[in-house]
Amino acid sequence: MELREMGKAAAAVKYDLACMSEERKNRALCAAAEGLERDLDRILSANEKDVADGEAKGMHPGLVDRLRLTPERVRAMAEGLRQVSALPDPVGEVLESFIRPNGLKIEKRRVPIGVAGIIYESRPNVTADAFALCFKAGNACILKGGSDALASNQAIAESIRTSLEDCGIDPDAVQLVTDTDRAVTEQLMRMNEYVDVLIPRGGAGLIRAVVEHSTVPVIETGTGNCHIYVDKYADLAKAVPILINAKTQRIGVCNACESLVIHEAVRERFLPALAQALQEKNVELRGDERARETVPDMNAAAEADFETEYLDYILSIKTVDTLDEAIRHINRCSTGHSDAIITEDTERAERFLNEVDSACVYVNASTRFTDGFEFGFGAEIGISTQKLHARGPMGLKELTSYKYVIRGNGQIRP
Amino acid sequence: MELREMGKAAAAVKYDLACMSEERKNRALCAAAEGLERDLDRILSANEKDVADGEAKGMHPGLVDRLRLTPERVRAMAEGLRQVSALPDPVGEVLESFIRPNGLKIEKRRVPIGVAGIIYESRPNVTADAFALCFKAGNACILKGGSDALASNQAIAESIRTSLEDCGIDPDAVQLVTDTDRAVTEQLMRMNEYVDVLIPRGGAGLIRAVVEHSTVPVIETGTGNCHIYVDKYADLAKAVPILINAKTQRIGVCNACESLVIHEAVRERFLPALAQALQEKNVELRGDERARETVPDMNAAAEADFETEYLDYILSIKTVDTLDEAIRHINRCSTGHSDAIITEDTERAERFLNEVDSACVYVNASTRFTDGFEFGFGAEIGISTQKLHARGPMGLKELTSYKYVIRGNGQIRP
Repeated sequence: MELREMGKAAAAVKYDLACMSEERKNRALCAAAEGLERDLDRILSANEKDVADGEAKGMHPGLVDRLRLTPERVRAMAEGLRQVSALPDPVGEVLESFIRPNGLKIEKRRVPIGVAGIIYESRPNVTADAFALCFKAGNACILKGGSDALASNQAIAESIRTSLEDCGIDPDAVQLVTDTDRAVTEQLMRMNEYVDVLIPRGGAGLIRAVVEHSTVPVIETGTGNCHIYVDKYADLAKAVPILINAKTQRIGVCNACESLVIHEAVRERFLPALAQALQEKNVELRGDERARETVPDMNAAAEADFETEYLDYILSIKTVDTLDEAIRHINRCSTGHSDAIITEDTERAERFLNEVDSACVYVNASTRFTDGFEFGFGAEIGISTQKLHARGPMGLKELTSYKYVIRGNGQIRP
Repeated sequence: MELREMGKAAAAVKYDLACMSEERKNRALCAAAEGLERDLDRILSANEKDVADGEAKGMHPGLVDRLRLTPERVRAMAEGLRQVSALPDPVGEVLESFIRPNGLKIEKRRVPIGVAGIIYESRPNVTADAFALCFKAGNACILKGGSDALASNQAIAESIRTSLEDCGIDPDAVQLVTDTDRAVTEQLMRMNEYVDVLIPRGGAGLIRAVVEHSTVPVIETGTGNCHIYVDKYADLAKAVPILINAKTQRIGVCNACESLVIHEAVRERFLPALAQALQEKNVELRGDERARETVPDMNAAAEADFETEYLDYILSIKTVDTLDEAIRHINRCSTGHSDAIITEDTERAERFLNEVDSACVYVNASTRFTDGFEFGFGAEIGISTQKLHARGPMGLKELTSYKYVIRGNGQIRP
């Protein structure tokens, strides 16, 4: 279908979705889960084609792994749909209500956003995940996955659409853009008439392109140059495991730690122990001059290192003389995702929490907790690094807007 | 100053503003109010220059009136600053807090957005208003007013900056772009590094241009093609005064009614009385065929009329046979600002409130109440017609974001 027609169809179905009962949405999500399991073979054989094409093109083995589906991965997708069905429906919640002196009753009520466009890269499971979250929050969605995963995404989307139809729901609640022409993606980014929000999910390049070309409002997600600052009053016995966890527990994720900021007063005591622990994990250290005085076999950090999200077994190290300097350095270099202080001094912790301008600010914990599941949202569509609408992990609520419902008995404005 | 330098300065001062006490902000707002009164003559003579230039260029008298300042208008600006100082500070409010099973204490806390860019047209009072709201919500602002009001805006901005300095506050909390080159405005729209949000305030052309050219997140404000639907079960004695009020109480505003949707069953009873009342107010009616059967001297409405925000003494009239048709028509033609139903039937009212997808939906009241002051917000930076971040009237809270503050005692992610 031509993209404008898809937009029109999505905008038409959104009114039904906005008023759909929670029970009906949940039944449809469970039916879609069963459908994915029923269509397992078809999905796997479509995926085999994508994987074969990728390998033939010399795709990086890491990307091939992200692309590949297995029976377990398809079952996990289905399980994901069931989990979303079990989450509370955010739509209809009354956020505020008040009565004005003139008798007008004003209610601020949570409603769906309408039509969400999701632009994503290789992993085909996003097709099912993004649908589930958008649908449960009452939104229609238009999905544009990576061209590498086209056959897989088509098989998954078709399976879900069939299940919706079986439930008597207009399948245009989820539509997949199959035209891989870049011009079509750019058209999606400018289709303000039909699309209410765009959420890019992927690498920094994808996100930059969407921000650059969109006239539709975008929620920027993802890039995380996350810092851990080990303060003068840090409990170093806490600091080592937190750094190991934040750096190495999972490497290629946005909430991994990319940079250590170390207070001069604990440099000599802390760095050797940390260096040894990180070397055991094969992490390359890139330090400033003072860090290298303490650990001489460390590589030198260039200024650019402090602005780099490595997503790799590399950690930059910056030495500071004061808490103020640490805060300034982090505010300058951070992408505003997640930053932590390790300290036993409450006052200094509070200053850090107040003054570091990031979506998630931590004291004495790993930055790896910035995650919709870890926050207890039960789901996650992405992690916002902008300040409008949503910041930090986004779950179902962040896929909603609100409206004001005003009840009068003939009031006019004097 | 060069625009990038202004951006850098705003981004530097935002950290101080974010942590500034409510008391200190209020003192500065009151000082700025006194300053405007003290600088009255200077502001008026700058304004005389703008007005003279405007008249010499043959500016429309309505625009000259918007541009013109009087001692009363300057005092009203000062009073506006004092009113904002009296509003509660939204910054620091704890929106939610919860403890995770692993002991992490998570707090969702209201914080300023950071740096707001405000792009506006002729009325110089916006310079003071926009500053006050941004400042009270802890944001730095970069203001770009219309070139017609440049001297007036400069005088107002300089006065405020001097007052801030007198209070020991960095005057770069408010900066005015004085370069009237369109390329500079476009640069402001793409300065994502320093500007967190853009809010255009003005006509549809300005807003469209900002949405079209910005890479910085925009909050769209303003355009209102607002409908009043007079239902089969309307109390017609309520309907006439509501329509008169919504259409004529103030003409050029976004919450004025532009279109009447009338149920066939009450057409013959309602339209003659309404037509007479509106003709007394010199309102031109443009009706569909059936409306013109009832009131033959009415002009004919073209399809384009139903999509037009007149901002004038004109009302379009559409006849429908069912509530469903009314809702579909409004969802198709409305700009999603404010729409009302007049009915005594609760069930039909609820269907309208649920199914009409606009920021403010009314039953039995004038659409003119869509306003920050009428809602009790005590202030208004604009009325959002988009669904992200803020919808409907925006006051101080809508000029804030939030952050997550997470307190642990050594937690790492398993």
